[in-house]
Amino acid sequence: MDRIPILQMGRFLLVTIQVDLYDRLALNLESDLVQMVNKTGARGVLIDISALSIVDSFMGRIIGNIGSMSKIMDAETVVVGMQPAVAITLIELGLELKGVSTALNVERGMALLQTKIGPEEDTEEDEDDRGS
Amino acid sequence: MDRIPILQMGRFLLVTIQVDLYDRLALNLESDLVQMVNKTGARGVLIDISALSIVDSFMGRIIGNIGSMSKIMDAETVVVGMQPAVAITLIELGLELKGVSTALNVERGMALLQTKIGPEEDTEEDEDDRGS
Repeated sequence: MDRIPILQMGRFLLVTIQVDLYDRLALNLESDLVQMVNKTGARGVLIDISALSIVDSFMGRIIGNIGSMSKIMDAETVVVGMQPAVAITLIELGLELKGVSTALNVERGMALLQTKIGPEEDTEEDEDDRGS
Repeated sequence: MDRIPILQMGRFLLVTIQVDLYDRLALNLESDLVQMVNKTGARGVLIDISALSIVDSFMGRIIGNIGSMSKIMDAETVVVGMQPAVAITLIELGLELKGVSTALNVERGMALLQTKIGPEEDTEEDEDDRGS
């Protein structure tokens, strides 16, 4: 597998990371995600890491990168489903997930995104039309 | 990895299959999913296979099993994100995904589930209370 699927759910994108990210996979994920945000106009990115029992500094950096890139593209990033052991490890290693919020599970993550980005606007296409 | 994460989204469960299923992983997925349906009272199961470029008879059987098990637990199963090549292979191999519906992507899959299971009822807890 050299790509992690990105699922669109309304205004959000959902990525479930199930395998350890190696270089190419991580780079593909970053570029795919930015392109998806651009293409779909998504306002939020949910990254589910419930399948990961280990998060190392590389993974932490990739998640941070994704958060920063999404931010530039005007999308918020929320990491969901972190296992307790992973949270402990992150703190013990002094790793921070900069620029990303966390939530217990996908549903809470979605709720968090909803509050962050506010209520759904009337289709952005209208604004585009007005602008042109 | 020996477990595929199952995400709850409202009344639905979402499973993203990103790796080839081997025996134990498939069995774990089946049992996890049935337990999740039981625990959450989910009415629909979405299986995203957009990351799979190959579906063999084993995978087909597992998806069929999940569909049948979910059906018994009163949940509909929809397979989403199938790649065109996979659809071609399925037909050429004469494999059928019995008991499951398909949809182009997660959003359409959700819409399909909504129509299949009808509008949201007022919290099932109320019915339980009435029953007891």
